[in-house]
Amino acid sequence: MDIKSVIRTIPNWPKHGVMFRDITTLLKDAKAFNYVINEFYERYKNDKIDSVAGIESRGFIIGGALAHKLNVGFIPIRKAGKLPSKTEREEYELEYGSAIVEIHKDAVESGMKILLVDDLIATAGTLAASINLIEKLGGKVVECAVIIELQDLHGRNKIEKKGHKLFSLVKFEGD
Amino acid sequence: MDIKSVIRTIPNWPKHGVMFRDITTLLKDAKAFNYVINEFYERYKNDKIDSVAGIESRGFIIGGALAHKLNVGFIPIRKAGKLPSKTEREEYELEYGSAIVEIHKDAVESGMKILLVDDLIATAGTLAASINLIEKLGGKVVECAVIIELQDLHGRNKIEKKGHKLFSLVKFEGD
Repeated sequence: MDIKSVIRTIPNWPKHGVMFRDITTLLKDAKAFNYVINEFYERYKNDKIDSVAGIESRGFIIGGALAHKLNVGFIPIRKAGKLPSKTEREEYELEYGSAIVEIHKDAVESGMKILLVDDLIATAGTLAASINLIEKLGGKVVECAVIIELQDLHGRNKIEKKGHKLFSLVKFEGD
Repeated sequence: MDIKSVIRTIPNWPKHGVMFRDITTLLKDAKAFNYVINEFYERYKNDKIDSVAGIESRGFIIGGALAHKLNVGFIPIRKAGKLPSKTEREEYELEYGSAIVEIHKDAVESGMKILLVDDLIATAGTLAASINLIEKLGGKVVECAVIIELQDLHGRNKIEKKGHKLFSLVKFEGD
């Protein structure tokens, strides 16, 4: 299935010069949403995944569906201050300033095999920080799975340099 | 299954006097998460639902899984400024101040049967505003489905006074 055709591009959002890839048009399309979750499911169903971790907020939609389909639990990775119990936190740099992601300390047990899910990889700042969170807690990141890879931003290099694997369903280059 | 036992209560979060019901302990438990999605699935599988709408952020996890299981599309209802295309917006009152939720104008077609999903109902401010959003676009809200109902806050009355239905899996009273 050509899911690229159901991803909407919104020029100059959230700021001038950015071509935003909007997956809400994919998610509302039952066939396309079903295709995405099934592609991931087929790839990981024999990997003995213990849990799916999804990154706030769009990663929750994909990750929640995939965790259920794989019949495992779901772990939310959230922005600073959103998780109510004790957290591990990781700060990372953005183009301007920095951001923080958090995970509950009791979300991962040592040795657990975690599949890390988000909707999109750009520079991979959030994904790399999320890998660090899982590893701090003794978890093993089986792979990072995303729908969209923005190739020009070279996030894949960042993930692979860390010794990790990335899987994307759709690649965008330039505009 | 007793899912109440896997919901963690965190006193005085996010502020003094609040007993926060934390579902991350439920979500990470594969059996409990599976139970929740299956309970909703069994309830709605014959209702010819066209789409599941989930409320940011925890409603995305439940709603994403349920939409996939029902083999329908997913519609995100988000906080102000998060959706990139044209939106319908609804402002509602909080204890202090107000909040805004938004939905993409092209997310719902007239006559669509929408199942509205969130993790929890408290005063029902967000749920009621989300119902309004869907109805502004001509959608029909089949039911509001949540895991947790905080009975003392009487959100059910607010939903039922609007002529809508609420379904919850677990009820909490007081502490």
